[in-house]
Amino acid sequence: MKMSRGFFPTLREDPAEAQIPSHRLMLRAGLIRREAPGVYSLLPLGIRAVQKVAEIVRQEMDRQGGQEIMMPLLSPAEPWFQTGRWQDYGDEMFRLKDRAGKLLCLAPTHEEIITGLVRDAVSSYKQLPVLLYHIGPKFRDEIRPRFGVMRSREFLMKDLYSFDTSPKGLEASYQKMFEAYQRIFSRCGLNFRPVEADPGTIGGSGSHEFVALSEYGESTIVTCDKCGYAADVEKAEYREPVPEPPGAGDGEADRPEAGSPEASTRAEVEKVATPGAHTIAAVAEFLGISARITAKTLFYRAVYPGDRSELVAAIVPGERDLNEWKLHSYLGAVSVEKAAATDVMAETGAPFGSAGPVGLHGARIITDRSLPKVHNLVVGANEKGYHFINVDPERDFDISNLTDLVLVHSGDRCPVCGETLGQAQGIEVGQLFKLWTKYSDALGCVFLDEAGNSRPVIMGCYGIGITRTVAAIIEQHHDADGIIWPHSVAPYDAIVTCVNTRDGAQVDVAERVYVALKEAGIATLLDDRDERAGVKFKDAHHNGFPVRV
Amino acid sequence: MKMSRGFFPTLREDPAEAQIPSHRLMLRAGLIRREAPGVYSLLPLGIRAVQKVAEIVRQEMDRQGGQEIMMPLLSPAEPWFQTGRWQDYGDEMFRLKDRAGKLLCLAPTHEEIITGLVRDAVSSYKQLPVLLYHIGPKFRDEIRPRFGVMRSREFLMKDLYSFDTSPKGLEASYQKMFEAYQRIFSRCGLNFRPVEADPGTIGGSGSHEFVALSEYGESTIVTCDKCGYAADVEKAEYREPVPEPPGAGDGEADRPEAGSPEASTRAEVEKVATPGAHTIAAVAEFLGISARITAKTLFYRAVYPGDRSELVAAIVPGERDLNEWKLHSYLGAVSVEKAAATDVMAETGAPFGSAGPVGLHGARIITDRSLPKVHNLVVGANEKGYHFINVDPERDFDISNLTDLVLVHSGDRCPVCGETLGQAQGIEVGQLFKLWTKYSDALGCVFLDEAGNSRPVIMGCYGIGITRTVAAIIEQHHDADGIIWPHSVAPYDAIVTCVNTRDGAQVDVAERVYVALKEAGIATLLDDRDERAGVKFKDAHHNGFPVRV
Repeated sequence: MKMSRGFFPTLREDPAEAQIPSHRLMLRAGLIRREAPGVYSLLPLGIRAVQKVAEIVRQEMDRQGGQEIMMPLLSPAEPWFQTGRWQDYGDEMFRLKDRAGKLLCLAPTHEEIITGLVRDAVSSYKQLPVLLYHIGPKFRDEIRPRFGVMRSREFLMKDLYSFDTSPKGLEASYQKMFEAYQRIFSRCGLNFRPVEADPGTIGGSGSHEFVALSEYGESTIVTCDKCGYAADVEKAEYREPVPEPPGAGDGEADRPEAGSPEASTRAEVEKVATPGAHTIAAVAEFLGISARITAKTLFYRAVYPGDRSELVAAIVPGERDLNEWKLHSYLGAVSVEKAAATDVMAETGAPFGSAGPVGLHGARIITDRSLPKVHNLVVGANEKGYHFINVDPERDFDISNLTDLVLVHSGDRCPVCGETLGQAQGIEVGQLFKLWTKYSDALGCVFLDEAGNSRPVIMGCYGIGITRTVAAIIEQHHDADGIIWPHSVAPYDAIVTCVNTRDGAQVDVAERVYVALKEAGIATLLDDRDERAGVKFKDAHHNGFPVRV
Repeated sequence: MKMSRGFFPTLREDPAEAQIPSHRLMLRAGLIRREAPGVYSLLPLGIRAVQKVAEIVRQEMDRQGGQEIMMPLLSPAEPWFQTGRWQDYGDEMFRLKDRAGKLLCLAPTHEEIITGLVRDAVSSYKQLPVLLYHIGPKFRDEIRPRFGVMRSREFLMKDLYSFDTSPKGLEASYQKMFEAYQRIFSRCGLNFRPVEADPGTIGGSGSHEFVALSEYGESTIVTCDKCGYAADVEKAEYREPVPEPPGAGDGEADRPEAGSPEASTRAEVEKVATPGAHTIAAVAEFLGISARITAKTLFYRAVYPGDRSELVAAIVPGERDLNEWKLHSYLGAVSVEKAAATDVMAETGAPFGSAGPVGLHGARIITDRSLPKVHNLVVGANEKGYHFINVDPERDFDISNLTDLVLVHSGDRCPVCGETLGQAQGIEVGQLFKLWTKYSDALGCVFLDEAGNSRPVIMGCYGIGITRTVAAIIEQHHDADGIIWPHSVAPYDAIVTCVNTRDGAQVDVAERVYVALKEAGIATLLDDRDERAGVKFKDAHHNGFPVRV
């Protein structure tokens, strides 16, 4: 294509709105244009890159026996009521009414639609397994759309759904998709990790995220270089450290620590004044103890099906962060939200920030699995300005709910091999979910097995963010001058820059090179615009096509 | 693809909901599935046909210098307010609010979005012309969605928009698209006519529809076999007949007709009783005259920008139908609706059905251009049960608003060559519009010309209904047994039917033929399902692939 006859708007200045490289470069190089918050047009170069990624995805879905379909974006409300997601999606779902007053939504995902489709078309095990996928827009009313197409409200996704007759079948479909995703993201030139993940709103159990490593990514992952273990931080586990031998303190050996391992291990609980010490660090310093023997108490309101709810106190080591997803998953709740201070005060009588598990009433106590090993714990005394020391969890409070509650971080030990774990940021470009029968049960998608029994179809779903993948590629492939496209997804393979379009001989040579490249099957741009050489070179740099002449 | 491993649902019975062949066959052959009124999924065979049509469209757009982009489906309300179409679209536009309460619509078309896009990217004549297109879903909340994907609420369209600096440029872009459309619909195997059309809601002036001939089409077109003139019936013109010589009546020569051409031509207006004669035919019979010298008076409420409105009386020959679009276009109104009986009575005092232009007050009179030639017209007397005879339009009522108001039909004479016109039904598969500066004026899309003056960009827009084109192809290419796909758009080129999958030798031969065809680059289905031969043959017939083995 000759640029003088095309539409290739570029920005001369960095756009103020862009905070990360891919967003800035996609705007500068003229790949996208913002139409509303989180809503973008794809310009000619942008759509070419997106189509290349989509074509790679299509080829790899077909290779695994997937068949493409196209589902509508307008979806009637009924099936969403049946699965309960009309409510679960909350404000993230765009809803509207048609002229007859019928409730519709803009599909944020397509489980409800495709399950109905397969339910009505499939009756026998003979017709299964089936792998169906579609590539199209999705809509989610993000509370804070940002980073261009990285987190937008309208975006392109590929979703494949698998329908099997048995757990073994689901496992096989899942493995096919796992393999397809490895091939897709490799072909896109991405440095990525498949990591164990939490299924989130989609539901089901068993899930992997494919994460493209990037400092600007919104996903935190934990990895082990030795054995290859990798998990989303929400899902990550760790091996508990071997308890330190008595006396191996942390250097604060000047005086015996109150409540430290050196102190008598089965001493009685004692209430001590800790005036003005509002943080774990302040309490530890005031008492002259290690933070490792403190515990903090965090209150949550858990809501269960049927609108039943309860106040929950999560007890975690003072120096660790609570992993809210682990708490959520342990409780099996519909939602788990931080409790309001007034709520905590009213139900437990404990002032917020001074609460502790000893003598606590009005809340269910969930304790991190590491705490029973500490017999001289320091916790809030449910009285402003006081803490309990010498607390023995087994003896002094209810530890019947014991589980891993902490957020793993770099430096923890790998749950598989015990090596030290690393931590990285990344962009979630794909996710695989085992849905089991969550949707087939809700929507009555059943088949007759060989014995003639009616059984629910076993489902999986497998998504790839197409526009987000393009942004992730740019995050990993750019330098100070602009994008450096991997050949597989470059909007054009080559650009021929005619520096001076008023020099007939040069124009002639440029034209001949352009035609020769095109005839060789190489998608080529000819920059024959009547512009200054500096502008042309800058645009060519920003766009980073693999071959520049 | 092996059918035993794929998703190819077919219906064994004709679906009750389908009224026309394409709808019935698309459901039976498993091309589409209904998800809600006017909302369809495209199943594996359906999307393959749609993608083939889309690819033909893409190739022909690119051939003419078009560049593909992708615009979002969620559109902010502001630009629609600026062009006035937020109101004009009425209930046909799907509207919603996001979580922040901002008004959005689902784009029924993209003039507003693309005009803003080009406005912000183009500043100089050097960057023009530009031809941009996109292929994607559109949303229109049809009051009566029907005929499957023929008139649905969510459908796939291609839209190209042209941006030029001059009327000559617009003409060139329009011609390019005209040529592209000829090529596209020919390649799709359609029997079609490009016809002059009314621009409708899109606005602008100068428009062609491409109409695929079909008895089930919703468009009526008028054609001349001699000179090739073709127009949508809304837009069609005709040559007025030469007035008949006196005495050449219509055979009712038994007695002199009151008010007939034989009567004294400048007689005074006379009121005659016509008790019980409520129709033109009844009046003509009662008075013993030809319907050709009657006129009927029809009342409309025309609404103009700024909510000004007026009552309009359209006077047309008694035996012809009023063409509402011609009235609308003559008035230049925002909307023209039939007036309510009470409204007519209140403003004119004339009882509904007995009204006539003589002595009429309270309504603006618009008269068909053919009526002044009749000097002995019979019209309603604005009094129940009475008509005026011997009315001379020039003398007896206000004919200052004179225009062609009638609906052309077969048998009228061609406006170009005078030959007799024919009439046909067809499916509108594409439309071309000259928009001129309607949108660039409203949205401030200007460029600097060579002299440095700011001028509005001159636009055109050119749509093709992709899903509707597939339905139109099926309307023209089917027989009693099913679809007969033209090769260019067939979902698969060939099908190999293995009649008995329990016969090893047969399975082996079928497999070899299937592999050989695939290796020859022929998209082939192998029907290796464990089904009765009758079912397989019936499915193969319904699907009508070009080659059947």
